[in-house]
Amino acid sequence: MPKVVDHDARRAEVTEIAVSLVVEGGRSALTVRGVAEAAGVSTTVVSHYFADMVELLHAVYSFAVQRSRRRVQAVIASDPADVTGLIEAVLPLDDERRDDWRIWFAFWSEALSSPAFGEEQRQRAKGQLDRIDRCLRVLRADGRLPATVNVSDAAHRLSALIPGIAAEAIFDPDGWPPSRQRRVLRSELALIGL
Amino acid sequence: MPKVVDHDARRAEVTEIAVSLVVEGGRSALTVRGVAEAAGVSTTVVSHYFADMVELLHAVYSFAVQRSRRRVQAVIASDPADVTGLIEAVLPLDDERRDDWRIWFAFWSEALSSPAFGEEQRQRAKGQLDRIDRCLRVLRADGRLPATVNVSDAAHRLSALIPGIAAEAIFDPDGWPPSRQRRVLRSELALIGL
Repeated sequence: MPKVVDHDARRAEVTEIAVSLVVEGGRSALTVRGVAEAAGVSTTVVSHYFADMVELLHAVYSFAVQRSRRRVQAVIASDPADVTGLIEAVLPLDDERRDDWRIWFAFWSEALSSPAFGEEQRQRAKGQLDRIDRCLRVLRADGRLPATVNVSDAAHRLSALIPGIAAEAIFDPDGWPPSRQRRVLRSELALIGL
Repeated sequence: MPKVVDHDARRAEVTEIAVSLVVEGGRSALTVRGVAEAAGVSTTVVSHYFADMVELLHAVYSFAVQRSRRRVQAVIASDPADVTGLIEAVLPLDDERRDDWRIWFAFWSEALSSPAFGEEQRQRAKGQLDRIDRCLRVLRADGRLPATVNVSDAAHRLSALIPGIAAEAIFDPDGWPPSRQRRVLRSELALIGL
């Protein structure tokens, strides 16, 4: 294997171990020592791939961003008017999506104090709002969204419901199982005639 | 001053300093050394009031819980049918409420891995849902909430909107100023005839 591929593959392996630690134990479970131990390598090896904790946490965050984006893009490619699918792609309805939210919440604590991380979170939320807005406009153009519905207000409500449902479901999985999450989303969509 | 009062007052002072550190810098800004430095005392003094980091973080969390509860109770005491007031009492519409959310988000990362903290978060979210549900039932009994509205669904949507709007507003204060937060809440209430 060429050396660069080897480097990238090893970095990806270390990232996945760091992802597991954050998913299991939150932000404070992410330490260079912990990653090294779980990977069965020395801390020097971890430091070879990640200059510092900021880089390591960012790699974990990017891992979740990328797989979340893949799910979202698959929905949009399949049906740009599928607002239910677009939102369900990022609700904690299965293990992968639940793990993503555990990563976002671990990252949020850091984003409160890091301008760079805060800006990433802001951009990601803004991107989500824009995608929902665009999806509703496709529905409006198709004549499927009643003319009485204010698209911008509806997009803002749906956009806010996503982290809201996720926060409820992550900390109260019994009270907010997938059926409850879907019911909340669908009852909101029903209110705007969808 | 009797010794016990002195102890409580000093503990409250140290707690407020810890609160400021979390509000400014998130969970990772909370260290015994940092609190001691900001308070101008030795780490031994901080350790006298708080046995460990768990106790210190819990004190910060409780500080926000108590003042949030005071705001909520004031609304309920004034008008048990004031669903807008009940929800606005916990949206990040001013500095105090914004600071509370910075504390919740810092705490959430810890609540992911601590069963005790996770349970506190779950109970708090459950209490909020119950209060909104009760408020909507008062409105229903008063004939102000249309009979076609499913109270449980409406309460779940409103309950989820709270952390959702907060997450948007904390990381994007320009995109989600108080006027936007209120608009999202009111447009949701308008959908159910309130």
